[in-house]
Amino acid sequence: MSGEALHRFSFNHATAKFWDQREAIEACARADCGIGLWRGPVAEQGLAATAGQLRDSGVEVTSLCRGGFFTDPTPAAIDDNRRAIDEAAELGAPALVLVSGPIPEGGTIDAARAGVGEALAALAPYAAERGVTLAIEPLHPMFASDRCVVATLKEALDLAAPHPAAAVGVVVDTYHIWWDPEVWDGIARAGAEGRIASFQLADWVTPLPAGVLTGRGQLGDGCIELRRYAEAVDATGFGGPIEVELFNDALWERPGPEVFAETRRAFERVLT
Amino acid sequence: MSGEALHRFSFNHATAKFWDQREAIEACARADCGIGLWRGPVAEQGLAATAGQLRDSGVEVTSLCRGGFFTDPTPAAIDDNRRAIDEAAELGAPALVLVSGPIPEGGTIDAARAGVGEALAALAPYAAERGVTLAIEPLHPMFASDRCVVATLKEALDLAAPHPAAAVGVVVDTYHIWWDPEVWDGIARAGAEGRIASFQLADWVTPLPAGVLTGRGQLGDGCIELRRYAEAVDATGFGGPIEVELFNDALWERPGPEVFAETRRAFERVLT
Repeated sequence: MSGEALHRFSFNHATAKFWDQREAIEACARADCGIGLWRGPVAEQGLAATAGQLRDSGVEVTSLCRGGFFTDPTPAAIDDNRRAIDEAAELGAPALVLVSGPIPEGGTIDAARAGVGEALAALAPYAAERGVTLAIEPLHPMFASDRCVVATLKEALDLAAPHPAAAVGVVVDTYHIWWDPEVWDGIARAGAEGRIASFQLADWVTPLPAGVLTGRGQLGDGCIELRRYAEAVDATGFGGPIEVELFNDALWERPGPEVFAETRRAFERVLT
Repeated sequence: MSGEALHRFSFNHATAKFWDQREAIEACARADCGIGLWRGPVAEQGLAATAGQLRDSGVEVTSLCRGGFFTDPTPAAIDDNRRAIDEAAELGAPALVLVSGPIPEGGTIDAARAGVGEALAALAPYAAERGVTLAIEPLHPMFASDRCVVATLKEALDLAAPHPAAAVGVVVDTYHIWWDPEVWDGIARAGAEGRIASFQLADWVTPLPAGVLTGRGQLGDGCIELRRYAEAVDATGFGGPIEVELFNDALWERPGPEVFAETRRAFERVLT
């Protein structure tokens, strides 16, 4: 990667989860980088106010997190995802990140996966009309029962396949897929099919903490070949933003500006 | 599954880790079931003494755990695995379970996987001569950096492929592979290639405990379709022992005889 990569840095707000969203957007404006937003803080600041601040400051929103949780695709779940698509459209976010959801009580993983397929069929036309790409995120298999039944890039691509690439894509998040012996094939296929709707970096550090959700490592602290991933994604023709999203208890205890600056430096160090 | 499955129950000693091995073997003799042993307790009781007790009591040892940890296949690592093969042969264990090991410090997962391939090539003829099958165990991807770089059944089968099936097979352990969207293909292939060297059951329960290694659920407590797995394995023509191996802190705190009885009941309940 060249120094050019630094201009593609996008800071996912969850990396400094408790940092006021308005301040985070201001920091991204000063640093001339993009931002990944979450529905909760957007609602807190107000959807229109957030959209206004983004417009005024010229900050690009690279994704909205998150929709999904539709393994049991009830009308309520579909409605909530339609609202999330509307929010993404109003914010100008090109992608809505989808975490598929758990195995419903008493159900099977196969049935849950079929539910995801149904939900995507119900939502894809709505997303396409609004110019938002649904970005299916495979999560690490340690989350397969309670958070996301979609566990590999191949599975996400197979779920996306029936739909136009502008309507349904995938998230390539290093933290979740780095262990997969077929990950390079998956990235090449995702690129060839035009399905890379979001590219996110986080590192894998062991031992995992109590509460495995919040153990994502700062870039360079773990074992993932992050630069190799960035090069593989770019080799497919992807030239979009590179988001850094770290769920990490230790980071969350620190001041947002400090976390932002450290993360940007780490990004530069590992990619250039 | 019919009531016949109960006769294939084998109790892996790690399920009651702190239970004296001699007593565990005695319990298996009384219950007319097999046992899976671990090198540490075997060494403690003495290899010859353990082999003698097994012979005298007629208890079948269904596997020896474990060899492996050879992602950096040094002469010392290979030697240790040769000793493990010798121990398996002396105990009459048909399979030596292999946990491949971590990514070596500063190395990459690809290099570590190549190391596993080298180690297998060095060990397979030795194992074949002694009538022991090396059983490559894919571990859950949450262990891919620090314990086992082999993460899927497909990967294990690809590693086994260059060797005769009598020398190198795989472990089908529900806990590690249940999340895999291609698991049924993997089981069918493993059976067709005659590679199922060990079949183990454990259930997946969330939330995972602090220290993810010791959170394997009692059969029936989690989300894995255990009977479906047993049927799929048997549909390939496998008719061997079905081991139950639960690493579980709560179980380890309880008396061995109680854990043994509960596990046997759970096995019967989920399979028949």
